[in-house]
Amino acid sequence: MARTPVWKSIAGTLTDDIAQGRYDTGDKLPAEAQLAARFGVNRHTVRRALAEMAAGGLVHARRGAGVFVAAKPTDYPIGKRVRFHQNISKGGQTPAKQILTTETRAASAGEAAALALPPGDPVHVYDGLSLADGQPIALFQSIFPAKRFPEMLTALEETQSVTAALQRCGIEDYTRSETRITARQATATQALHLRVPEGAPILRTTGINVDAKGIPIEYGRTWFAGDRVTLTVGGDE
Amino acid sequence: MARTPVWKSIAGTLTDDIAQGRYDTGDKLPAEAQLAARFGVNRHTVRRALAEMAAGGLVHARRGAGVFVAAKPTDYPIGKRVRFHQNISKGGQTPAKQILTTETRAASAGEAAALALPPGDPVHVYDGLSLADGQPIALFQSIFPAKRFPEMLTALEETQSVTAALQRCGIEDYTRSETRITARQATATQALHLRVPEGAPILRTTGINVDAKGIPIEYGRTWFAGDRVTLTVGGDE
Repeated sequence: MARTPVWKSIAGTLTDDIAQGRYDTGDKLPAEAQLAARFGVNRHTVRRALAEMAAGGLVHARRGAGVFVAAKPTDYPIGKRVRFHQNISKGGQTPAKQILTTETRAASAGEAAALALPPGDPVHVYDGLSLADGQPIALFQSIFPAKRFPEMLTALEETQSVTAALQRCGIEDYTRSETRITARQATATQALHLRVPEGAPILRTTGINVDAKGIPIEYGRTWFAGDRVTLTVGGDE
Repeated sequence: MARTPVWKSIAGTLTDDIAQGRYDTGDKLPAEAQLAARFGVNRHTVRRALAEMAAGGLVHARRGAGVFVAAKPTDYPIGKRVRFHQNISKGGQTPAKQILTTETRAASAGEAAALALPPGDPVHVYDGLSLADGQPIALFQSIFPAKRFPEMLTALEETQSVTAALQRCGIEDYTRSETRITARQATATQALHLRVPEGAPILRTTGINVDAKGIPIEYGRTWFAGDRVTLTVGGDE
């Protein structure tokens, strides 16, 4: 495998600086010469790092004025209640969802196990894209038991919200039983949807939401753009 | 950036299968021809995927007998109490730590903020490698307030355990106030220590541990090999 270029680790450090609030949205980053001195590299290398961050939407260059922080990585709390709209709104960003595909089909062995269904039972499958301030932050696939929620796909198309759609199906509240988190590299298709380079780091979460009685109602997998999202656990929960 | 090769996504899928228990430690994976049929690729591509997994220590080939699951990805719970030894032992693996470097120096601005110290206050810095069953699973850096815990580095060297060393320094219990999780690509140095290819996906966590009064006592960053570790949140906590 190719060596990790220096500009990549510089982009990573500057991304961390932005995530940790050292530079805020709208702030001007130090000049190229200063950054070059900080990292002990030439200005060409700094420019390459900034170009990568600009491609990811984190910074933007204004001709003659410098490079500014365009967006902070989004903090995304993982806890007992994981709610996309609430998570994004809390950080002062505007949430949106795009439906990519929906279908109803037989559950795979893994899906049936996750939802505690008999193998082959029908499930609704909802593939979509999550956005914060118009920028894609995650791809997701949510799977629901189709016999229990026959109207789920219609409700999702009308409300664009899992929480609202489940409410229409009679679920007033639901909680996350467990979330599993791994790191992956973006595939070609994921890269295209998330507008990141292929091979870019991805945070993949797998979660099961359960109703008040502990019965699984949603099996979800999410692929977050690793540069744009920080998952948080604990904190002000 | 180069296209994500098919063998990589096959290796990812098989890794997930192992993580989810479809194949357990010691199990024989299906023959190359069967895997080729499952993924719709030729045997050469399957072989490449299995070689990658073998390099990561997940499977091993026995001449003439087939490919066997060598190790399950380690589940690592992130919750109110994050304890390395306990986390690894619970999964039936043997935990170990290697000290890479220790030093006492002035805190950086970020470290001082994380530990609620005056800027420039001295901190102990402990860099190490965590292993499960002899296999490296994470690099970590733990930072402690040096004025409060003057004997911390000696205690760490003697006990090889943060929990035990803190106990010697008078801390009976401590909890995690927040954990932040992002995905990165392994740098050259990280790859060397973790024995993964450069650019391999890394789960990076940042956490602050606090004493019974909520005062920060440890600021820690950990870089987990993304293929070998699944962070879990919630579950049986």
